[in-house]
Amino acid sequence: MKKTLKLALKGAGKVSPNPMVGALIVKDGKVISQGYHSFYGGPHAEVVALSNAGEEAKGATLYVNLEPCVHFGKTPPCVPRIIDAGIKRVVVATLDPNPLVSGRGIKTLKDAGLEVSVGVLESEAKRLNEAFFKWITKKIPFVILKVASTIDGKIADTSGESKWITSFASRKLVHRLRAFYDAVLVGIGTILKDDPELTVRFVKGRNPVRVILDAYLRTPLDAKVLSAEGRKIIFHSSQVSKDKVKALKALKVELFEVSSKDGLLDLDEVLKKLGEMGIASLIVEGGRKVLSSFLDMGLVDKILYFVAPKVLGKGIGPFDEMSVSSLSDSLTLKDVRVRRVGVDILIEGYVL
Amino acid sequence: MKKTLKLALKGAGKVSPNPMVGALIVKDGKVISQGYHSFYGGPHAEVVALSNAGEEAKGATLYVNLEPCVHFGKTPPCVPRIIDAGIKRVVVATLDPNPLVSGRGIKTLKDAGLEVSVGVLESEAKRLNEAFFKWITKKIPFVILKVASTIDGKIADTSGESKWITSFASRKLVHRLRAFYDAVLVGIGTILKDDPELTVRFVKGRNPVRVILDAYLRTPLDAKVLSAEGRKIIFHSSQVSKDKVKALKALKVELFEVSSKDGLLDLDEVLKKLGEMGIASLIVEGGRKVLSSFLDMGLVDKILYFVAPKVLGKGIGPFDEMSVSSLSDSLTLKDVRVRRVGVDILIEGYVL
Repeated sequence: MKKTLKLALKGAGKVSPNPMVGALIVKDGKVISQGYHSFYGGPHAEVVALSNAGEEAKGATLYVNLEPCVHFGKTPPCVPRIIDAGIKRVVVATLDPNPLVSGRGIKTLKDAGLEVSVGVLESEAKRLNEAFFKWITKKIPFVILKVASTIDGKIADTSGESKWITSFASRKLVHRLRAFYDAVLVGIGTILKDDPELTVRFVKGRNPVRVILDAYLRTPLDAKVLSAEGRKIIFHSSQVSKDKVKALKALKVELFEVSSKDGLLDLDEVLKKLGEMGIASLIVEGGRKVLSSFLDMGLVDKILYFVAPKVLGKGIGPFDEMSVSSLSDSLTLKDVRVRRVGVDILIEGYVL
Repeated sequence: MKKTLKLALKGAGKVSPNPMVGALIVKDGKVISQGYHSFYGGPHAEVVALSNAGEEAKGATLYVNLEPCVHFGKTPPCVPRIIDAGIKRVVVATLDPNPLVSGRGIKTLKDAGLEVSVGVLESEAKRLNEAFFKWITKKIPFVILKVASTIDGKIADTSGESKWITSFASRKLVHRLRAFYDAVLVGIGTILKDDPELTVRFVKGRNPVRVILDAYLRTPLDAKVLSAEGRKIIFHSSQVSKDKVKALKALKVELFEVSSKDGLLDLDEVLKKLGEMGIASLIVEGGRKVLSSFLDMGLVDKILYFVAPKVLGKGIGPFDEMSVSSLSDSLTLKDVRVRRVGVDILIEGYVL
């Protein structure tokens, strides 16, 4: 199953909002065929593996990290294909997260007389497709906060300068994450202060959809984020100039109006809209106001906290705008993992 | 040599301001004797190992983590003993740090015809006795800042509450550190707010010397820190009441007046005095003002930064009172190590 998960990962950044799926066919202890879901709308992993195996699939065991489907989507369902191919046993890591269809694939396989095991490396398989699982059940993206700070919790100095707190190794990893996840979001403050590209230029892969929260459409027309390849989306309030709307649209920026209060856009509406657009995962990269709001509103699934081994002293904290301020109400991360990234330390944890 | 360092560690918390030293005698590939420096003023590791070996030491190899001494201190010098015992070869991890005697032990051994190797596991040996090395050369203690914060760099919430940010595992490790190092220091703010004991009650070992920076002698006579066993030292300014001095002395608190400016005590004087008293290592545990001052004055050797996987939002940062405030002047830790302590993360690094 580990190999299956690794195969599935090959679809990273290409299949969303579909899940990443890998499939292996094993006969007499040997892998005779494999496949993975390689692009959105493309053939499912099981079908690729079965096609590769041909007649050899008869009597073999199929390993797949997600319950095979029984419904028609972009492609015909996999379960009949598995039965027709003469597969004897199916090993599944995790059920389909969609409660309406969950277990139906397994049942159909069992009814057809196949041996079925479920739950092998289940937690790893769920983690692999955690964004898809969230999106398919809640209809909004899986939200990852990314923070880069000093050990004393500063993301910028008192003048707002934040270049560069973390090392090149960390920044490169952030680019890999952007290539892995669907979209990246920043507030207008970050655009005006740092003029970031929000691209994946240090690594191979496609740029993420770039999303800007910009109530009054203050994004400059020559902002770097607008010139780089890929989709650009700006959420704004009703208080915007028609000329700016026109100018941004001419630059192929997609604009969406959402409710706002005192210049703060309604984040629930933003996530709902992104979910509708098929964006299953979103990295929120700052700044302080946006990071604080997402946490305050309980909209964060995961935090990726890069710590540079530096001490700044005075400065700006990532969540200084949060309303929580009592230790007893502090938020505890779950399932925390720690690793070194160059000289930096990456702390990963879940919020929900 | 690894075994020698491990032996040396047995003297932790007992030999300071002497160094921790272990010695092994090896003959025909077998350890025939061992010894370590086990209490201040007690026999040196080499002498213990030689006594254990007796006649067997003839023709053997001696492993020791610090250059053997040639001068009379609390005990007679080791080098003549080594020569007299008929040791053939001596393997030393690191030279004596005292520039006045460094290399003299080695030279005397060589002149007597012994084979000598120096530099085996040198950096580990230096790290083991880093406090001694600092103290013997600079006459002031090796200073370790200890911080316990949330991932967003808060050591207390806006109300000043800091109990408990980190887990029991981390607090227990802090007690082990207190048993290992000579002294622990806090400011009067911490005494008044948290009323800490600063003891080693969660682990075996002796309490560290407890040092309080208290310009106006505001430490309450019933403060917990004063009642626990062990030495208590308060540094104060000239602006103190005679009655309070008398009352504290009656509680066996040692009082020292140092220069001050606007209620801030002269830290150089404090460290010099502690050094004179034979305190080779000092953990500075807070609060924010004390932590910031030590860093600002460039008096810190090492930082032990415990990070709890929590987000607080608003709150108090450990170094908020530092004068540094520009990213380009931020302080970069060297030789950084990271490890998990329970659910927390410990980041260790050197400043100087």
